[in-house]
Amino acid sequence: MTTVTTDDKQIFARRESEARSYCRSFPTVFTKAEGATLTDASGKEYIDFLAGCSTLNYGHNDPDMKAALMEHISRDGITHGLDLHTDAKAGFLEAFERLILRPRGMDHRVLFTGPTGANAVEAALKIARKVTGRQKVIAFTNGFHGVTLGALAATGNGYHRGGAGVPLDHVTHVPYHNSMGGDIDTADLLNRMLAEPSSGVEKPAAIILETVQGEGGLNAASREWVRRVAEIARAHGALLIIDDIQAGCGRTGGFFSFEEMGITPDLITMAKSLSGFGLPFATVLVKPEYDQFGPAEHNGTFRGNNHAFVTARVALEKFWADDAFRSEVAERSAYLEKRLNKIAALLPGSRVKGRGMMMGVDVGSGETASEICKRAFRDGLIIETSGAHDEVVKVLCPLTIEQQTFARGLDILEAAVAELNQSGKIAAE
Amino acid sequence: MTTVTTDDKQIFARRESEARSYCRSFPTVFTKAEGATLTDASGKEYIDFLAGCSTLNYGHNDPDMKAALMEHISRDGITHGLDLHTDAKAGFLEAFERLILRPRGMDHRVLFTGPTGANAVEAALKIARKVTGRQKVIAFTNGFHGVTLGALAATGNGYHRGGAGVPLDHVTHVPYHNSMGGDIDTADLLNRMLAEPSSGVEKPAAIILETVQGEGGLNAASREWVRRVAEIARAHGALLIIDDIQAGCGRTGGFFSFEEMGITPDLITMAKSLSGFGLPFATVLVKPEYDQFGPAEHNGTFRGNNHAFVTARVALEKFWADDAFRSEVAERSAYLEKRLNKIAALLPGSRVKGRGMMMGVDVGSGETASEICKRAFRDGLIIETSGAHDEVVKVLCPLTIEQQTFARGLDILEAAVAELNQSGKIAAE
Amino acid sequence: MTTVTTDDKQIFARRESEARSYCRSFPTVFTKAEGATLTDASGKEYIDFLAGCSTLNYGHNDPDMKAALMEHISRDGITHGLDLHTDAKAGFLEAFERLILRPRGMDHRVLFTGPTGANAVEAALKIARKVTGRQKVIAFTNGFHGVTLGALAATGNGYHRGGAGVPLDHVTHVPYHNSMGGDIDTADLLNRMLAEPSSGVEKPAAIILETVQGEGGLNAASREWVRRVAEIARAHGALLIIDDIQAGCGRTGGFFSFEEMGITPDLITMAKSLSGFGLPFATVLVKPEYDQFGPAEHNGTFRGNNHAFVTARVALEKFWADDAFRSEVAERSAYLEKRLNKIAALLPGSRVKGRGMMMGVDVGSGETASEICKRAFRDGLIIETSGAHDEVVKVLCPLTIEQQTFARGLDILEAAVAELNQSGKIAAE
Amino acid sequence: MTTVTTDDKQIFARRESEARSYCRSFPTVFTKAEGATLTDASGKEYIDFLAGCSTLNYGHNDPDMKAALMEHISRDGITHGLDLHTDAKAGFLEAFERLILRPRGMDHRVLFTGPTGANAVEAALKIARKVTGRQKVIAFTNGFHGVTLGALAATGNGYHRGGAGVPLDHVTHVPYHNSMGGDIDTADLLNRMLAEPSSGVEKPAAIILETVQGEGGLNAASREWVRRVAEIARAHGALLIIDDIQAGCGRTGGFFSFEEMGITPDLITMAKSLSGFGLPFATVLVKPEYDQFGPAEHNGTFRGNNHAFVTARVALEKFWADDAFRSEVAERSAYLEKRLNKIAALLPGSRVKGRGMMMGVDVGSGETASEICKRAFRDGLIIETSGAHDEVVKVLCPLTIEQQTFARGLDILEAAVAELNQSGKIAAE
Repeated sequence: MTTVTTDDKQIFARRESEARSYCRSFPTVFTKAEGATLTDASGKEYIDFLAGCSTLNYGHNDPDMKAALMEHISRDGITHGLDLHTDAKAGFLEAFERLILRPRGMDHRVLFTGPTGANAVEAALKIARKVTGRQKVIAFTNGFHGVTLGALAATGNGYHRGGAGVPLDHVTHVPYHNSMGGDIDTADLLNRMLAEPSSGVEKPAAIILETVQGEGGLNAASREWVRRVAEIARAHGALLIIDDIQAGCGRTGGFFSFEEMGITPDLITMAKSLSGFGLPFATVLVKPEYDQFGPAEHNGTFRGNNHAFVTARVALEKFWADDAFRSEVAERSAYLEKRLNKIAALLPGSRVKGRGMMMGVDVGSGETASEICKRAFRDGLIIETSGAHDEVVKVLCPLTIEQQTFARGLDILEAAVAELNQSGKIAAE
Repeated sequence: MTTVTTDDKQIFARRESEARSYCRSFPTVFTKAEGATLTDASGKEYIDFLAGCSTLNYGHNDPDMKAALMEHISRDGITHGLDLHTDAKAGFLEAFERLILRPRGMDHRVLFTGPTGANAVEAALKIARKVTGRQKVIAFTNGFHGVTLGALAATGNGYHRGGAGVPLDHVTHVPYHNSMGGDIDTADLLNRMLAEPSSGVEKPAAIILETVQGEGGLNAASREWVRRVAEIARAHGALLIIDDIQAGCGRTGGFFSFEEMGITPDLITMAKSLSGFGLPFATVLVKPEYDQFGPAEHNGTFRGNNHAFVTARVALEKFWADDAFRSEVAERSAYLEKRLNKIAALLPGSRVKGRGMMMGVDVGSGETASEICKRAFRDGLIIETSGAHDEVVKVLCPLTIEQQTFARGLDILEAAVAELNQSGKIAAE
Repeated sequence: MTTVTTDDKQIFARRESEARSYCRSFPTVFTKAEGATLTDASGKEYIDFLAGCSTLNYGHNDPDMKAALMEHISRDGITHGLDLHTDAKAGFLEAFERLILRPRGMDHRVLFTGPTGANAVEAALKIARKVTGRQKVIAFTNGFHGVTLGALAATGNGYHRGGAGVPLDHVTHVPYHNSMGGDIDTADLLNRMLAEPSSGVEKPAAIILETVQGEGGLNAASREWVRRVAEIARAHGALLIIDDIQAGCGRTGGFFSFEEMGITPDLITMAKSLSGFGLPFATVLVKPEYDQFGPAEHNGTFRGNNHAFVTARVALEKFWADDAFRSEVAERSAYLEKRLNKIAALLPGSRVKGRGMMMGVDVGSGETASEICKRAFRDGLIIETSGAHDEVVKVLCPLTIEQQTFARGLDILEAAVAELNQSGKIAAE
Repeated sequence: MTTVTTDDKQIFARRESEARSYCRSFPTVFTKAEGATLTDASGKEYIDFLAGCSTLNYGHNDPDMKAALMEHISRDGITHGLDLHTDAKAGFLEAFERLILRPRGMDHRVLFTGPTGANAVEAALKIARKVTGRQKVIAFTNGFHGVTLGALAATGNGYHRGGAGVPLDHVTHVPYHNSMGGDIDTADLLNRMLAEPSSGVEKPAAIILETVQGEGGLNAASREWVRRVAEIARAHGALLIIDDIQAGCGRTGGFFSFEEMGITPDLITMAKSLSGFGLPFATVLVKPEYDQFGPAEHNGTFRGNNHAFVTARVALEKFWADDAFRSEVAERSAYLEKRLNKIAALLPGSRVKGRGMMMGVDVGSGETASEICKRAFRDGLIIETSGAHDEVVKVLCPLTIEQQTFARGLDILEAAVAELNQSGKIAAE
């Protein structure tokens, strides 16, 4: 095993691309993780309110998944099998059908894409275009769907779009719920643009949206708005794609973020916490009538990560076999909201945003948010910002976080905000 | 652990997308794999001449990597850490620098992209476009670089391109080495097109190529041609991207497929066998002067797969610390070529193609090739086709395959060809 | 001279493309035209409320322009001279500078493009993109800017866009003034979309608009809205292009449609009535600092039509040397509005739209509008529809129309509406 | 009438865009033109070997066309009639059918596009894309088809392409006849690229080409090559578009440039000399089965220029009613070739290029060609360069040029070359 020495950081500076990012905010070398706790090479522990950007909804190295994965590896189970049938895949599919699809009355097919969210989004867009024979897609302001060319076209973030180096086409960006001030009914606006034959906005292949925009600043669309958009999609012959990569897998309470909304998306993209263990894994759920790809029409070497099949199955069986987990998450969410409201009250002009365990505080500026996160890290809390101006301090801790750790993390956050407030830095802005 | 029953195949038919592919050619359920051998639920063993399309160059479940990975998991090492610094990442970078870069006089930076080859290609194209301020890219006939929108534009395959649903722009496809008949010097043609100010082909940001086209039919470019193309890239201000996803990691002998060619690519995409163990992992190697991405300008949840860091480090230390492995591969390649020549001699009009342990037999038609593979599978050999018409029977076995197994696999292949030949099916074509 | 016989219509059916259009609504063969009157082969006269879609603002065959043109031709003046200097061009430029630019405090350069409005729009978009280094352009719902690929991308009309056969890229269509219901401030919406760094709408090279949308249904933007859009363009570093092809040359009162609005567009496209005589002629007026094309960077065989230079100069000298014409147009506009209000009163639910001598009645449906135009034609009036649903009966007569003819034309229109009303056809809708 | 004074050039410098071009090479003010002679404001006469870039094939101000046009104007014939039926249009169509189409066994429909060649090209591309449902088009190196966005994508010239400001998509540029050295069969290369399913070059909607590339350097394709390309188009389901804008109307001998080639293009674009008189006029000839535009699907204010109809009819009747003109052109071409060969012999390394009355001398560099043209202008000859490097001195005089004038012009050219040769400037290169 590699011994961690002070040289380690030099190797990063010397060899890792300038594109590295989170390590700049949290400049230490991590060596161990369990539940909601990360430990660095010096033995210092950190509470993890980042959780792999919602990839670790069940915490780091969940013991049951860990045991199953080690058992699989130890018996030389298939690690890499392209898209061959394996027992691990069967196990996942069977559990997914039994615990997720059937109870929700869903009949979707599972497309194993390359193991990144962006790849799932690319596949979903391709399906929608193939099925409808149309090219344009409707996406929303502040939406984030990945940075490969097809997904990036649907992403709103100007910094990431700027990296494309070519024009990003075939996507029309329209205002998300409440994004243009409360007075503008953005669903109605979209409907008018699509209904008007001379609007210059063509009938789309798909409308793609996140019910809560994780990267975009924890903007949570209302049930009514999402339903309206679903109706608009149907009315104009477009497929509805819910990108549930960040908001799904329990983050907002249910397995899917839209469960309480009375909609059935035509396509659903899943990734991040799908494996349960933080392993690369992504999928598109497709209504059977739209499962129109030919064999390997969308392919990829790592589609179907068998280690992930193993841990994902355990995650489903452990957390989604009954309603216990959902209830726990609801309780934690209520607690989180209460605490965040208290924190927001410390900062004039700030406000709580988000839904479920995907909440944060819009503190008004990226500078303030960054200051808060820096102080929190100093005190042992890993927490990041979100939003177009990085103005939202975002709590994305494991859903399984113990109450005591949760409270301690929020205490650190609260103290950081209070300290900043007292320092007078806020007033100066 | 899931028990494998006859129900297992039904779950695939019921729930897995029609895009599933290899499982159609090899319709059994695999449960175990070791070295070059796969075992199915019934206990039947298969010799693996597919090796995850060159993802398993070191075989399935290499015991040293397996041990290191289990150790890492058992001690709650970081599984998912976004792009945070971890000891596992340090270990990989240190080994990569020491065993790969330094001995080859390379000073490239390592960009950890999303863990798919396509994602690495997307990142490389973005870098080239950003660095040069140009948009067009030169790619080659029969090239395969992935199926997300940016990579797909550079891919030649018409079936995959057809799945895009939108036009694939910003890439000019030109003939690969020897692709237009031996009389046309395709490098010269490219040079003329780029040199001519009224050709309609704009100065490119990059020229991207595989030195051996794995999916495109095992077309192996000559050293001279690759050098010419490298010179053309430089002369016209374009970056040279070698896509070494399939041909790298020892497949053609050296760690990189271009080591004997006297070129230093500006950007190199790596994936497939990079983790050594079949785990999702991809990277772009970037010359320092072109490492111009801003923090997170290209990002992704699964960039930096820590399990893969662990196994990749072991792979480097085990196979690339000295020249022993390279010599073994060279010996196996020579044996392979001898055997394939003998097999090709059985089929009038067929010919051996490829380089190193990436060779096969062009049998003239996809039908013939498919028939051969079917018979081989019946007899316990997993082998697939390649090429624009699926006309090449492609041997992509683990580089570590034992001689006895290797010979047995080739015996099965030879028998399949002989049987087909005797059946008179070939003559009828 | 060709004798007009009954065969003539057969030659059209036999040889002219199915793309022919106006001749379907007015199926006779015209042989002569003077002022506001067209005469067909049978000697029947028609009042012209179409005026070449605002190309004949000064009427057909104005005697002074006619005399100057015949003098030019008779003395073998230059007809075609590419973009060589000619006396005719000098005469036009001198008059344009003296009578149009100087009095308005404008310092624009004159770019002679290919002699179509679409070509001028293409050139303007190219300039804006070159000057700013940006690619995207903002255009508005219901805008019409031509049907060549660059201009068509900025055109809203779905029927015309459908003819492109390729995706129309690099233009973002946003709602025009009042187009989304009076409650949505569309300028504010545009500003928010551009100000928001994660909106997915990139900073544009230009904002292009018509102050009155001629083809789009006679939507007239308010002075305040146009000023707001001009400010938004400036604030976001975009050039403001006013497409004055249909609304300029006196159609809305002044020489430019925006004269009363307190803006100075960076680029102005002119065509249609610019020659005064109906001859093909188009130009882009460019602020000197944006006159950045290299020699022939935008070229074309017919840029600079010398016949048009001759007649355009006469038109400027005859109509724009003082304010008399403007006053006459204002009077006629007032009369037109009065009469149209009366006509609209006959049709429940209809309303008057437009500005200046570019007004019409929105009769609620394309069917009703078409019925009205058919009856009008029967009675000797040529008038057409406009709008996304062809729901606006549009009066576009020569600005020089004699009062008596004008009144007679409006009488015919009024009678057609009244007749339709009485027939009960309207009620049935 | 405007008096030409020395101020006139100042008005151009002050007001005309920097995009002005030919006037830079020929810096005088022209006032009069007849046949092959231009006269400037000082009374100096110039022989015109430019002829509006082949727009004045019948010379300036042909007396018969002039008489017909003046008669038309004097009797208030229709000047501008959108696409209404007029007697002038009937006259043109009737003559075109009788004198051009029928004798050649052609049944094409006539689409009157906006009156520029680029507009005709845009329309032709739209038709091909609509008819085939495909998006890509094949165009050739050094082809020139106009500078509006759709046409510009098919144009090879890098300078003009650079003016687009957006990527030029949906066109694949392949080598023209003989453009890659005589050893490469470029038609075969094209065929292989289209036949190969993994070439990355999609099946095209159309193949567009000029039989002689006027702007591209007078490259003349052979009959055999054009026939091969026509076959390739048919074999791959693509429409064949011959862009006859510069090479048609007698320039290469017949009315169409491809008459001797045994092909019938699906679409033919015509402009430049079509009106006979230098008036803006363009058309697409469409095989009836491909005449699939809906009414006004491609439209434009100046489609159908009635003045041009009048002169075009006279041109057809005067020059194309029998074979006399064709014979004269053939004689003049033979004379031209003889003289140019003599001129080329003066310059080591130079060679004659082109076909018919579309010939010139490739003098090896743009500098040399420019020097020659400057000296010729000094001596009263207007002549321009062509080619990717402006390396071809191009003779494009009126086809009707009198022998004496023709000889005098060629004498001036010969003297300019001789003078340059003696000056030693050539040797220095």
